[in-house]
Amino acid sequence: MRKPKKLLNHPADVCQQQLEGLIAASHGDMQKIAGISAVVRKDLNHGQVLIVTGGGSGHEPMFAGYVGDGLADAAVLGEIFTSPAPDAIMATVKHTRPGKGVLFIYGNYAGDNMNFAIAAELLEEDGITSRSVRVNDDIASAPADRQQDRRGVAGDMMVLKIAGAAARLGLALEEVWRLAEKARQHTRSIGVALSPCSLPQTGKFTFTLAQDEFELGIGVHGEPGVRRQKMVPADQLVSELVESLCEDLALTAGDEICLLINNLGAATFSELLIASRKVHQLLAQRTVVVHDTLIGSYCTSQEMSGYSITFFRLDKPLKALYDAPCHSFAWRK
Amino acid sequence: MRKPKKLLNHPADVCQQQLEGLIAASHGDMQKIAGISAVVRKDLNHGQVLIVTGGGSGHEPMFAGYVGDGLADAAVLGEIFTSPAPDAIMATVKHTRPGKGVLFIYGNYAGDNMNFAIAAELLEEDGITSRSVRVNDDIASAPADRQQDRRGVAGDMMVLKIAGAAARLGLALEEVWRLAEKARQHTRSIGVALSPCSLPQTGKFTFTLAQDEFELGIGVHGEPGVRRQKMVPADQLVSELVESLCEDLALTAGDEICLLINNLGAATFSELLIASRKVHQLLAQRTVVVHDTLIGSYCTSQEMSGYSITFFRLDKPLKALYDAPCHSFAWRK
Repeated sequence: MRKPKKLLNHPADVCQQQLEGLIAASHGDMQKIAGISAVVRKDLNHGQVLIVTGGGSGHEPMFAGYVGDGLADAAVLGEIFTSPAPDAIMATVKHTRPGKGVLFIYGNYAGDNMNFAIAAELLEEDGITSRSVRVNDDIASAPADRQQDRRGVAGDMMVLKIAGAAARLGLALEEVWRLAEKARQHTRSIGVALSPCSLPQTGKFTFTLAQDEFELGIGVHGEPGVRRQKMVPADQLVSELVESLCEDLALTAGDEICLLINNLGAATFSELLIASRKVHQLLAQRTVVVHDTLIGSYCTSQEMSGYSITFFRLDKPLKALYDAPCHSFAWRK
Repeated sequence: MRKPKKLLNHPADVCQQQLEGLIAASHGDMQKIAGISAVVRKDLNHGQVLIVTGGGSGHEPMFAGYVGDGLADAAVLGEIFTSPAPDAIMATVKHTRPGKGVLFIYGNYAGDNMNFAIAAELLEEDGITSRSVRVNDDIASAPADRQQDRRGVAGDMMVLKIAGAAARLGLALEEVWRLAEKARQHTRSIGVALSPCSLPQTGKFTFTLAQDEFELGIGVHGEPGVRRQKMVPADQLVSELVESLCEDLALTAGDEICLLINNLGAATFSELLIASRKVHQLLAQRTVVVHDTLIGSYCTSQEMSGYSITFFRLDKPLKALYDAPCHSFAWRK
C-alpha cells in the first residue's frame, strides 16, 4: 500500500518552518508576531477595521498567504488541521492595536468557533469590539436547510476579499461585517477527491480510496463526502457539481459570479483546466456570466488529489469590492 | 502497484480541452488561433518586437499561461511532451503580423530546436525576421562545460519576463534578443522528484521510484536525473541544491537574484515553503540578496511530486525589466 512521501524535516517542525518560509518569501510584506504562530501585514492602518483570519495549518497558502493590502491584516494559525488557541487569537488582535474594531473571518468548525468566540468575549472585556463571520460554503457538508452546519472551505477567500476591500474604504465595523456576511451568503463550494491527504504528525493517509473510485463532497481535512463512486468522465462529474452549485445558490439567467477552481493538492493543471472548460460551457448555457476565474492552489489539503469548485455570486456592491486591488502572497489583483 | 488517476475526458482530447479551459478563464485576455493549438494575446502591439513561445503541452500553466502584456504575445503548443510542428509555429507568427520582427523563446530540446529553426528559416524567406533563445537552465541535464546540451525547465519564465518587458519598451529585435540571451545566461534550475509523472495517452507512469527514494536532477518530462538516493531531511537536500546553483551561477557575496520554487505537480505547499525557508537562510549566510520569491505551480510535469528551484541573477538592467508590470493568467506583477 502506498504511503505518504514528503520532503520535510521533522514532522513537529512543519508548521513553524513553513510559516518562516512564507514570511521570507513575502520580502517584508508580512511579519511574524513574536511567540505565537501568527503573521501581521506591514503598513497596518489602525484607522480601519482590522480583518483577522485564521484556522488550522495544512491548507497553505490559506490563511497566511492572504495577509496583505486589501485582504486580511493578520492570520493566526493552529497546528496542522487544528484551531489556534484563544490566547493566540487574543495576542494577534492586541498586536494589531485595532482602533475601529476587529472582524474575524474563519471557517465554520467547532474548534475555530469555540476559540474565536472565547477570544472575542475576552477582548470585549478589554474594550476591543469584534464581529465574526463563520464561512460555511461547503454545500456537501450539510443540506441547504442546515446551512449553519456547513463547513468552510476555499470560499473563505471570497469573504476575505470583500471584507478587506470594505475595510480599506474606511467603513465602520457593522458595515464591513454586513458586507462580509453577504459575501458568505453568496458563496458556495463543493469538492471532489481522487486520493487522500496525510498529516505529517502521523505519516498516514486519513482515508483510502480504491483505484477506480472518487469521493464527491470531500472536506478539506478529509471529512467524508456525500458518496463514493466509480470514476466517470470529467465533464459528467463537473456537470453534477455545477448543477448542485447553481441550485444551492439559486442562480438564474443573467446572474453574475466569480469562479474559483481550487487544487486540493495534487490535481494536475490539466484536470483543473478541463474542469474550467466545462464549467464555462455550462454557465454560458444558463446565461450565467462569469466575471472572473481563478485556477490554482488556494486552499489545499496537503497531497490530496482533486479539486473544489467555488461560485461567488456578485451584485453591484460586491462586484465593486471584488474588483478592488489586493496584494498578498497568494492573491494579487 | 499504483496507477495514474486523473479526472479527464478522453485522453486524446486533453490538449485541446485544457487550452479551451485556459482561454475561457482568461476572459478575453487571450484568443485561440483558428485551426492550430496556439493562443495570442489581445491588444497586440505590431510596433513592438513580438515574443512567441511554445513547446510541448503537459507543463501547464506554461506556456500559454504566460501569454499577456509584458510577457509572451503568443504561444504555440504541441501534444503532451511533444514539440509543435513548423507549420503551426509559422501560422502563429503570421497571425501576429509582426512589424519589428519576432523573438522565439523555447526550451532547449531537439524537437523544439528543429521545428522552431525550420519555421524561422521559412519565415525569413517570407520576409519575417526572427531571433531565437533556447533556454537551458537545468544544471542537472549536462555539466557546465556542455551548457549547450542543457535542457530548458522553469527558467523559461525569467527569459519571457525580460524579453516581454524589453519588447514593451519598443526596443529593436537585436536588443530584445540580447537582453533575453543575457537572462538565459543568468538563469539556473535544478529539480527533484519523489514520484513519477504519467502521460494521458499511455495512462502509465514514465518511471518508478521506491517509497524511500527520490531522484535528484529530474527533467520535466521525467528524464533521468543525476542520481537516485534514499530520502533525507528537506534542509539537507535543499542545501545541496542551493550549493549547486550558487556554484554554477558563480554567485558571490552581494549578488542579487530572483528565486522561483516551482511545484512540479503534486508537491504540497508545505514542502515548497519549507524549501523557501532554507533557501533564504542559506542565501542570507552567503550575503546573496533575494529580490523576489515566486512559489507555486509555474512549470509542471503532470502529477510528478517534487519541485525545482530556479535562481535568476539580476544586474541593474535585468532588475528594471524584471520589476516591470506584467499581466497574464499565470503571472501578474
